[in-house]
Amino acid sequence: MPGNRQVVIAALPAGPLAVSDFELRDGDVPPCGEGEVRCRTLAITIGAGQRAGLQGSASYAGAPVVGAVMGGTGVARVEVSNDPAFAPGDLVVASTGWQELSVHRGHALQFIEADDRGEDVDPAMHLGALGTNGLTAYFGLLDVGRPVAGETVVVSAASGSVGHLVGQIAKAAGCRVVGVAGSPDKCALLVERLGFDAAVDHRDAAFRDRFKEAVRGGIDVYFDNTGGEILGAALRRMKPHGRIVCCGVVSQYDTTAPQPGPTGIPGLLVNNRVRMEGFLVFDYADRYAEARARLRSWIADGTLVPLVDEWHGLAQAPAAFVDLLAGGNIGTRIVRVG
Amino acid sequence: MPGNRQVVIAALPAGPLAVSDFELRDGDVPPCGEGEVRCRTLAITIGAGQRAGLQGSASYAGAPVVGAVMGGTGVARVEVSNDPAFAPGDLVVASTGWQELSVHRGHALQFIEADDRGEDVDPAMHLGALGTNGLTAYFGLLDVGRPVAGETVVVSAASGSVGHLVGQIAKAAGCRVVGVAGSPDKCALLVERLGFDAAVDHRDAAFRDRFKEAVRGGIDVYFDNTGGEILGAALRRMKPHGRIVCCGVVSQYDTTAPQPGPTGIPGLLVNNRVRMEGFLVFDYADRYAEARARLRSWIADGTLVPLVDEWHGLAQAPAAFVDLLAGGNIGTRIVRVG
Repeated sequence: MPGNRQVVIAALPAGPLAVSDFELRDGDVPPCGEGEVRCRTLAITIGAGQRAGLQGSASYAGAPVVGAVMGGTGVARVEVSNDPAFAPGDLVVASTGWQELSVHRGHALQFIEADDRGEDVDPAMHLGALGTNGLTAYFGLLDVGRPVAGETVVVSAASGSVGHLVGQIAKAAGCRVVGVAGSPDKCALLVERLGFDAAVDHRDAAFRDRFKEAVRGGIDVYFDNTGGEILGAALRRMKPHGRIVCCGVVSQYDTTAPQPGPTGIPGLLVNNRVRMEGFLVFDYADRYAEARARLRSWIADGTLVPLVDEWHGLAQAPAAFVDLLAGGNIGTRIVRVG
Repeated sequence: MPGNRQVVIAALPAGPLAVSDFELRDGDVPPCGEGEVRCRTLAITIGAGQRAGLQGSASYAGAPVVGAVMGGTGVARVEVSNDPAFAPGDLVVASTGWQELSVHRGHALQFIEADDRGEDVDPAMHLGALGTNGLTAYFGLLDVGRPVAGETVVVSAASGSVGHLVGQIAKAAGCRVVGVAGSPDKCALLVERLGFDAAVDHRDAAFRDRFKEAVRGGIDVYFDNTGGEILGAALRRMKPHGRIVCCGVVSQYDTTAPQPGPTGIPGLLVNNRVRMEGFLVFDYADRYAEARARLRSWIADGTLVPLVDEWHGLAQAPAAFVDLLAGGNIGTRIVRVG
């Protein structure tokens, strides 16, 4: 196809996101100016945090605009390069957006080193465990949460793109790990395949009791991907000097009416001397190389099992996104575009 | 008087605290057994945190009991000592409770060194700036909040027992300081007498706008003594990498129905990478001497002006407490008993 198929924002969602909030458009091949690089998208990743970007100023991602190409990160192959640092055929990670072709200044591209390509360049790895998800799990857990061997670590959205990596890194750090996920199947996968010590289904009517039982003795580190009721339940079980890593708020993304924060803030933080800390992975950019090297070695020796959940075809991206917000994904969700 | 006048808990408050929740009783002179020390209370301190102790298990202070002497900290003089470490006439800080006489094991008493007595032994200093209030302000601000010269520090309940010290220590650290207090008079006192850069009345109908204006440019450290709406307002104005020191929750003490936490938790913590951390001063016990030495030198050179608000007579303690919860105090509130 000679053009540039794109998914654009058709409407800013007033309630839960719908496939109809997007539309497919045939764009022109974008010109590649001086110092610029044109890339062909191989795959994009879809994450819950992107929903926050559609809420406008409430998010770190900036305000969304109707008619604009939906933003997102992808793995792409350089097609035309007017920057001597890149050559046709190079593989990069870039803010491709949901489209086939995108043009960037060279400094906005992250070159995928030969070391990281593996045998057959799987984009999934650079959008998952070696990409933002893996880096988020790594710095959030180790630098913000600071778990110590023998401690109890709890993670919510535990089978999700970041959560499934957090739990496994916590196991590697010698911790007891409890996951909170949204179905019995997800819980079984966490325990049986990923080595979590326990998993609790937050959609179970007996969630509170089961959670209490699973974290008996208390929580040292809670890695929060959800906010809302699960955060509230964890807050009540924190040990003295516990740490809550605030990574994401998936319970609040798919709505225009954010809920109040959990009861007990700040009282419970005082009584139990709890530290609750938000972070953005971009602040750790100067340590990505260190983190990637460790993540790569954990993947190589089987310590870390990255899970990927693939959809095919750019036109499927909106459905893949809506499904993800409903809890449909396991691990990193990618949409192969090529 | 040969007996031991005491204020006991007559009822656990179901709503706002009332003077009728206490009653005055004539107790017997308590026997002083082997290894024990009997003390005569000179003054007690009254703080909002004691209200939390009447909420039962929700507090770090343990569950309250009807008929028991109201708990509290006082300065006392040793009358009878069966512990060789103490002699009659010694001055101590102790958990005297609201009564004239109390008996303690020696290790539960904190001896007031001659250095700390000043010319004429003012109990107020050992219940205020050199006592728990001063230590709380010192460790909470400097160790948890970690302000840097040039930063903006905001403190709520800013004319209160801890708040008025926090703001002055922040000024000594080279920060711009904004206080939030509950009346125009309190705000004037903060700016005119204590050197705050600005102060905002949270009972003013235009509070949100005035607060926004006072903290334009954003907040680096928010020292929270209140929780509730003031916390919510501060949360929206935190700078990236800001810190919220959770010290107390005065907005939530005088009730049996705690409010939900502020909207935006945890989302705003993530977007602005904010750290929110609770602490209890008792965890810093091994550094009290260091802190007291600095506080003493600041008081001596006029850097720190401790404010004290005195009531007279044990029978007045319940009224002094109810009035304090309604915002009546300026600085450390003490009731002279002797």
